[in-house]
Amino acid sequence: MLGQNNYGKSGIRLVKLVRHPDRHEIRDWTVAVRFEGDFEAAHAAGDNAEVLPTDTMKNTVYALAADHPLDSIESFALHLSQHFLTENANVARVRIDVSERPWERLEVAGRPQRHAFSGAGEERATTRVERDRSGARIHSGLADLTILKSADSGFAGFRRDRYTTLRETGDRIFATALKAVWQYIPSDLTFALLRRSIRQTLLETFAEHESASVQHTLHAMGEAVLEQHPEVGQIRLSLPNKHHLPVDLSPFGLENKNEIFVATEEPYGLIEATLTRSP
Amino acid sequence: MLGQNNYGKSGIRLVKLVRHPDRHEIRDWTVAVRFEGDFEAAHAAGDNAEVLPTDTMKNTVYALAADHPLDSIESFALHLSQHFLTENANVARVRIDVSERPWERLEVAGRPQRHAFSGAGEERATTRVERDRSGARIHSGLADLTILKSADSGFAGFRRDRYTTLRETGDRIFATALKAVWQYIPSDLTFALLRRSIRQTLLETFAEHESASVQHTLHAMGEAVLEQHPEVGQIRLSLPNKHHLPVDLSPFGLENKNEIFVATEEPYGLIEATLTRSP
Amino acid sequence: MLGQNNYGKSGIRLVKLVRHPDRHEIRDWTVAVRFEGDFEAAHAAGDNAEVLPTDTMKNTVYALAADHPLDSIESFALHLSQHFLTENANVARVRIDVSERPWERLEVAGRPQRHAFSGAGEERATTRVERDRSGARIHSGLADLTILKSADSGFAGFRRDRYTTLRETGDRIFATALKAVWQYIPSDLTFALLRRSIRQTLLETFAEHESASVQHTLHAMGEAVLEQHPEVGQIRLSLPNKHHLPVDLSPFGLENKNEIFVATEEPYGLIEATLTRSP
Amino acid sequence: MLGQNNYGKSGIRLVKLVRHPDRHEIRDWTVAVRFEGDFEAAHAAGDNAEVLPTDTMKNTVYALAADHPLDSIESFALHLSQHFLTENANVARVRIDVSERPWERLEVAGRPQRHAFSGAGEERATTRVERDRSGARIHSGLADLTILKSADSGFAGFRRDRYTTLRETGDRIFATALKAVWQYIPSDLTFALLRRSIRQTLLETFAEHESASVQHTLHAMGEAVLEQHPEVGQIRLSLPNKHHLPVDLSPFGLENKNEIFVATEEPYGLIEATLTRSP
Repeated sequence: MLGQNNYGKSGIRLVKLVRHPDRHEIRDWTVAVRFEGDFEAAHAAGDNAEVLPTDTMKNTVYALAADHPLDSIESFALHLSQHFLTENANVARVRIDVSERPWERLEVAGRPQRHAFSGAGEERATTRVERDRSGARIHSGLADLTILKSADSGFAGFRRDRYTTLRETGDRIFATALKAVWQYIPSDLTFALLRRSIRQTLLETFAEHESASVQHTLHAMGEAVLEQHPEVGQIRLSLPNKHHLPVDLSPFGLENKNEIFVATEEPYGLIEATLTRSP
Repeated sequence: MLGQNNYGKSGIRLVKLVRHPDRHEIRDWTVAVRFEGDFEAAHAAGDNAEVLPTDTMKNTVYALAADHPLDSIESFALHLSQHFLTENANVARVRIDVSERPWERLEVAGRPQRHAFSGAGEERATTRVERDRSGARIHSGLADLTILKSADSGFAGFRRDRYTTLRETGDRIFATALKAVWQYIPSDLTFALLRRSIRQTLLETFAEHESASVQHTLHAMGEAVLEQHPEVGQIRLSLPNKHHLPVDLSPFGLENKNEIFVATEEPYGLIEATLTRSP
Repeated sequence: MLGQNNYGKSGIRLVKLVRHPDRHEIRDWTVAVRFEGDFEAAHAAGDNAEVLPTDTMKNTVYALAADHPLDSIESFALHLSQHFLTENANVARVRIDVSERPWERLEVAGRPQRHAFSGAGEERATTRVERDRSGARIHSGLADLTILKSADSGFAGFRRDRYTTLRETGDRIFATALKAVWQYIPSDLTFALLRRSIRQTLLETFAEHESASVQHTLHAMGEAVLEQHPEVGQIRLSLPNKHHLPVDLSPFGLENKNEIFVATEEPYGLIEATLTRSP
Repeated sequence: MLGQNNYGKSGIRLVKLVRHPDRHEIRDWTVAVRFEGDFEAAHAAGDNAEVLPTDTMKNTVYALAADHPLDSIESFALHLSQHFLTENANVARVRIDVSERPWERLEVAGRPQRHAFSGAGEERATTRVERDRSGARIHSGLADLTILKSADSGFAGFRRDRYTTLRETGDRIFATALKAVWQYIPSDLTFALLRRSIRQTLLETFAEHESASVQHTLHAMGEAVLEQHPEVGQIRLSLPNKHHLPVDLSPFGLENKNEIFVATEEPYGLIEATLTRSP
């Protein structure tokens, strides 16, 4: 029996050059389109009559991008999802993911250059719009935002069992590659502006928090977003704990005054939680 | 308000050398441990009294592996999850993920060598055991199994709209990196043997199917597993369509008799479905 | 002053389907083309009159592949390099790199299937042909051949200084991702056959060697290739030491009988050497 | 016969927290150490008496980092290489590679925070110091500096043959991930300051150049560095051409006014050249 099923196109690389008279802007996006609906005949009988090719999804992304300002990833995802749902009667639900790669303007002699850019890091702005016949839900976020604090972070008073060897610490490096996904309650927002503000709330809370654990700081970050941004109904944060371990220098007759660390990739802690606005 | 939350350790690299008198065996596993439960105090107040460190989870994996035969990733995941749930009263649900990297024995002068191995590819055997106070659920699978068929695959008769430019074809390369996850109904099984059999069913069906689309072949693969393996209650298959595009040689006065292709990474189709045993 | 310079196209993904009456074969290659020569005008003055576009290099790879049997990566690289040097009078030296991704035939009911394949691992067969007006040099090899031996490997009697904490061991896991590059003296060889034989020599020597260090085994592997394969004039081997560290289980009251290891990625030893046939 | 050989430790992850009274600084470096010298006995006979373990190299990096200001990757690489050469009489040549991951200070309420940082992108600052008994040579550089210009770039007037299908263009996107390596003539320099200046020269020249080809701009960039920085004796630039292809929208009745592009990863052009100061 066929259960939940979906199909679509991923990894659609879309770059739009917005040509203002005095300067260019770059949009560098990766788009994924996903359909759910009644595709029983395609699966069970190999009947493709209701299957819009994934190649057509890709073409549609480029065609619609030509006539859209691409002012935000959210507005384009809303537009795309509307198009696909309207044009495909057999589709029950469309999901659009857009991830944005940031570029920043180069400066020449201290002044912004009109058409030259450098990549602005691994961080990605993301959105997922899911639309069915009842409306659209928007989950925006960011991914791979690498952050580190070198003070105001400890981990102590934890539960111990016979396999516990970890020492308590009142002063450790706290480093993570933040992933955040928040749900917007209304869908008519100035998305790009709002995103900058939410991102700043996350960063400032991370920087200033007196952290008793990753969980503790995660909770403070989520709470701050909900308090300062009424447009957000819910937020989920994922914080991998990218461990920085103090190096034991005592065999060499040296003391490590919490200055020399080895950064490790594996294993890593992973702490995740959702915070929801109370009703 | 704190909603769903979880924490744990990922990327725990465990290698066990099983020393038989006449030969060695290698287990090369990556383990992740995840707890869910009542961790409100840790999040809201920074109180770690109920937080078992993720470092302890890692230690526990190594300690328990020393006394366990590691006969299958499933049996060890069941054992680990039982341990953690028993020892941690405040934990409501434990999830263990294990992924196995395969090694195969080297041959010397045509005969199997007793202690030398080569890596057996990108494919990984996987399992996820989720255990709560009511029992355990086992979802096993495989990931990154790259397969390709160069005949018996077409795509035609599909829906067209104004953005459709794809040509129909009765003869295309069908290549994918299969991901499969199936649910075992009972939990007392000879997992390693059963896995080999399910894997072979997937491969043989893929090879022999007269494919009208990725959906069509996915469905046949899932159906075959459910038919031939009563232990499996449900299976989900993910098939990225790794497109191989015929190269247009006509500008050079050559005909491409469906022989010369460019393999592409992006964009890619993604087709996923769950098949469930009918009640 | 313009010094050494080169340009070309990399990452040319070429898949050829060889259609025999009773079965298909797959060639899955990645090709790079590189020119050196007199390109002073292009660099200094932006004069492209002597610059064959890298796009044309790519087209040429596909066009020539259509009419070539692709019986070995070496024979095609020789052919391509000849073409480019003949057609481009201003080019002094052409370098062609080809890397092959292996596929193996699937079996159905214990018998080889005619047109279905699975990916045969991360290992790549490689060749580099460098051709100038005086002739061609062939350097073939393999990359990412992951191998491990769990006996007959130690490391002791090494030099110590005040920063040395490593313990001597007579029994350690020796794991590496072998890269080998060997130079063929003649250029008219049955390359595919010879490659299999050289590869087997490398593997058997690795498996059977009583290893006192990575250097020691590297040397034995290279020596065996030179002794058994008179066609090879020189071989360079690179062996990253992928450390497997015994886990200290004593805090848990357990003894680690050299059975439980953590596999690490960083840092890693890197041992490299060239062996040359004595004159 | 043993030819060129080397061994060492790579991937040594070193993080130093510099604790000023009013703020912290982060050094996030990856170090590799490599020895060349007389290691014939180790290779041929398995005699390790002259082999300093690579584990000791790693320990030495951490120990020496504890007592060094780490004011620049160059100064530390010079110091490390001196140490190893002095302490190991049988070593003829030491090579130290250091790559720096940049972090930037977070701002809170518009003011720099004292101990919180975010990752500042994929770009890496690099240095390689090679030292033998006659002295040290310093090659510094940068890697993975992604840059793009959307005007003042064309490619026309190129050589054509029967496989050429590329169209001439006077207006294309020019995107690359710059790698640069330059040789310093003196070794007593304010490295960090000089690096910033060389980097700015590269970026400004890229941004402002009227580019007739990648070669043309590469040459201008190298020339500018040599002209403006007498400390640099030679520079090598590698510019992968990360193609952005205009999407053909004509099947959809739309015109692409050079606004909509697909960014591609493969194949890619690769243009490299060395510029040397004339004697």
